[in-house]
Amino acid sequence: MVKKIPNPPILSVSLASQLEMPFYRGISRFVRTGSNYCPWHFYLQHCYINSSHPLSASNHASKVLGCRQNYSWGLRLLYGGGYRINHSATSTVEDQSDPFSLVADELSLLATRLRSMVVAEVPKLGSAAEYFFRLGVEGKRFRPTVLLLMATALSMPVPISSTNRVVDTLAMDLRTRQQCIAEITEMIHVASLLHDDVLDDAETRRGVGSLNFLMGNKLAVLAGDFLLSRACVALASLKNTEVVSLLAKVVEHLVTGETMQMTTSSEKRCSMEYYMQKTFYKTASLISNSCKAIALLAGQTAEVATLAYDYGKNLGLAYQLIDDVLDFTGTSASLGKGSLSDISHGIVTAPILFAMEEFPQLVEVVERGLDDPTNVDLALEYLGRSRGIQRAKELAAKHANLASEAIDSLPESDDNDVRKSRRALSDLTQRVLTRTK
Amino acid sequence: MVKKIPNPPILSVSLASQLEMPFYRGISRFVRTGSNYCPWHFYLQHCYINSSHPLSASNHASKVLGCRQNYSWGLRLLYGGGYRINHSATSTVEDQSDPFSLVADELSLLATRLRSMVVAEVPKLGSAAEYFFRLGVEGKRFRPTVLLLMATALSMPVPISSTNRVVDTLAMDLRTRQQCIAEITEMIHVASLLHDDVLDDAETRRGVGSLNFLMGNKLAVLAGDFLLSRACVALASLKNTEVVSLLAKVVEHLVTGETMQMTTSSEKRCSMEYYMQKTFYKTASLISNSCKAIALLAGQTAEVATLAYDYGKNLGLAYQLIDDVLDFTGTSASLGKGSLSDISHGIVTAPILFAMEEFPQLVEVVERGLDDPTNVDLALEYLGRSRGIQRAKELAAKHANLASEAIDSLPESDDNDVRKSRRALSDLTQRVLTRTK
Repeated sequence: MVKKIPNPPILSVSLASQLEMPFYRGISRFVRTGSNYCPWHFYLQHCYINSSHPLSASNHASKVLGCRQNYSWGLRLLYGGGYRINHSATSTVEDQSDPFSLVADELSLLATRLRSMVVAEVPKLGSAAEYFFRLGVEGKRFRPTVLLLMATALSMPVPISSTNRVVDTLAMDLRTRQQCIAEITEMIHVASLLHDDVLDDAETRRGVGSLNFLMGNKLAVLAGDFLLSRACVALASLKNTEVVSLLAKVVEHLVTGETMQMTTSSEKRCSMEYYMQKTFYKTASLISNSCKAIALLAGQTAEVATLAYDYGKNLGLAYQLIDDVLDFTGTSASLGKGSLSDISHGIVTAPILFAMEEFPQLVEVVERGLDDPTNVDLALEYLGRSRGIQRAKELAAKHANLASEAIDSLPESDDNDVRKSRRALSDLTQRVLTRTK
Repeated sequence: MVKKIPNPPILSVSLASQLEMPFYRGISRFVRTGSNYCPWHFYLQHCYINSSHPLSASNHASKVLGCRQNYSWGLRLLYGGGYRINHSATSTVEDQSDPFSLVADELSLLATRLRSMVVAEVPKLGSAAEYFFRLGVEGKRFRPTVLLLMATALSMPVPISSTNRVVDTLAMDLRTRQQCIAEITEMIHVASLLHDDVLDDAETRRGVGSLNFLMGNKLAVLAGDFLLSRACVALASLKNTEVVSLLAKVVEHLVTGETMQMTTSSEKRCSMEYYMQKTFYKTASLISNSCKAIALLAGQTAEVATLAYDYGKNLGLAYQLIDDVLDFTGTSASLGKGSLSDISHGIVTAPILFAMEEFPQLVEVVERGLDDPTNVDLALEYLGRSRGIQRAKELAAKHANLASEAIDSLPESDDNDVRKSRRALSDLTQRVLTRTK
């Protein structure tokens, strides 16, 4: 009997597609010259072997990468227990069009592994680091979704032989390494959240008590440092110096962006250029550089790596611009319905900056200080009379389109999974624009 | 006329020694099979060429390592400007016996480079990160001194040809990479100081206003993160995955040690084993693992790398044990003359732990809380009646001897510089015991 998988993950979609076609998968360039074929049933059989054999691909990956403690277990979850994949029987139209559904199971596997990666010798430290992962504060896990989709979107067709298990192992290793990038990215992101919370003395983050409020500043800083060190160890295990440099640079960017936001210079606070640079550092650098890392691990060309970077960068910028709009409007289109968190903390964002172009006197209001609610109200009044919100949305749309164009510029592929993932990535650029939370 | 160098650096000592002998220098194992000789004057000439030629060894190192921006300048400082080295004319007996004097000039070069490495896009961030380096809060720079001495102590004799500039370049590259380890170690150390200051809400550090007090917690945390990211970028540039893992693990250890110190469990706070583990994490891990990194970069065997690690570990433990003693005694031998910083913050260290073995009722005093000055006074009274201070010193001496034994166990060498550096490292183990600040 065929067992259904409600939300087919990338890997199971790949498997399913083999019911109708030879099995193609992404693999590093150095093995791209292969030209053999393997029927899907071999691959399934191979996965069963992997899940138990001590010298299986998954175990090998575990040894090579160091950060793969639960990978074998994950494979058993995905492929073990008598699963028979039937793509057409299990995927609904909605599933196929939802980028998050496409990678839902793989994300779940990743979340489990993330929790195992932050187990610390001192339980309190592990609990602190795990805090955000456990509560799923990040909701839909935007970053790992993008990265897993990007991994498939950049995979190159390599027809492989049923006897060539080396190629198969390499493909699995590559996917594991790319998943590791997604995990590292989440660790860096959560570390920055932890440190930001300390910095801002924030009492809650998205409705969940912030760690520093619950456990003290001390543990929150330490947990952030701990996550950074684990991320660094995981990065080192990938044995790719360029990727280490890219992601280390991201940490510097996050810090630079945060410091830029602390500026008290009116000239800088009221400059669109300064705002965009800060936004890149604080939001877009992580996703753009990790997208590039996915491409580099796959052995892609510099051109493709740059397209992956461009996608991440523009998606990140669009995301943040909409975030800044929602801070004013919330779910409705009306001003003042948002949390007004930025402006009440004196942070000047795109809508206000655009409004300033129409009403230069708004600069003076900001200079007088946004810690005074009267000035906030006045700023909102100017914003309401301006096209600030609209122009911020337009700028977001421009960047979303640039992101989409980057995907369209990728080398053509007739692989179903690749095309599906690319569509999902394009789809994400539009979802970013229409999101309400 | 011969120009004098007051404190000959390691490299100039090497150069000087060539006046009387062929030039031997440490180099990666893969070139150890060389068996040529080069007269010292060639090396000097080569250094002159290096300081200006665009394709010189120093410039090459600069490109390969990424973190060597000022290296060419440093070489000019050391070798340029018509210097003629005359070891016997410039070194006093005191210089030769003082481990710090042996590497003074190289340390100064390193300090300059460190400052250039923490230049940030946002000046405020760079200033914050540079704060400790600029003020020289670290005084004698204990860690880089140990690491530079270790680099020479582990160098292997490679007689080289006057025509074999490749070997010469490789030796210089190795030294540069080992210097980079010293710089990274300092960055990690300072980052942990910055974060510790935030955590403890410390108002001063060694008489200098702590950064968080002067510039706010926010900037201190960000500056620490910034230093960690720069350290990670520099680490990546070394292109040695094992070294990256070692030093990333150190960051985790620093965090683990700090978290262990936060424990409120009486059982743990009163356990010598727990204390020693915490001390390793907080103090000894950084120096032991960076000593090991120095050995690994030199292509040393696993046995030698372990000896380097053992030296660093035991030196670090001895250092901290004496630190804990000095917290009670200060420069005198009398109890209560120290700053009593640990005990007044509720931190239980070796002297108290040994005193507890003689007076179990001291456990109860600690459990009642050291935030009460009455209990602190009572604890000091028990300590004064016990052999706590003496036993802590004895334990420090035991570890200092173990460190010295590790040096004695290194493969024999008849190279003057190697022997001098090993003597200096042994000397340091005794200096750690007799220091008064």
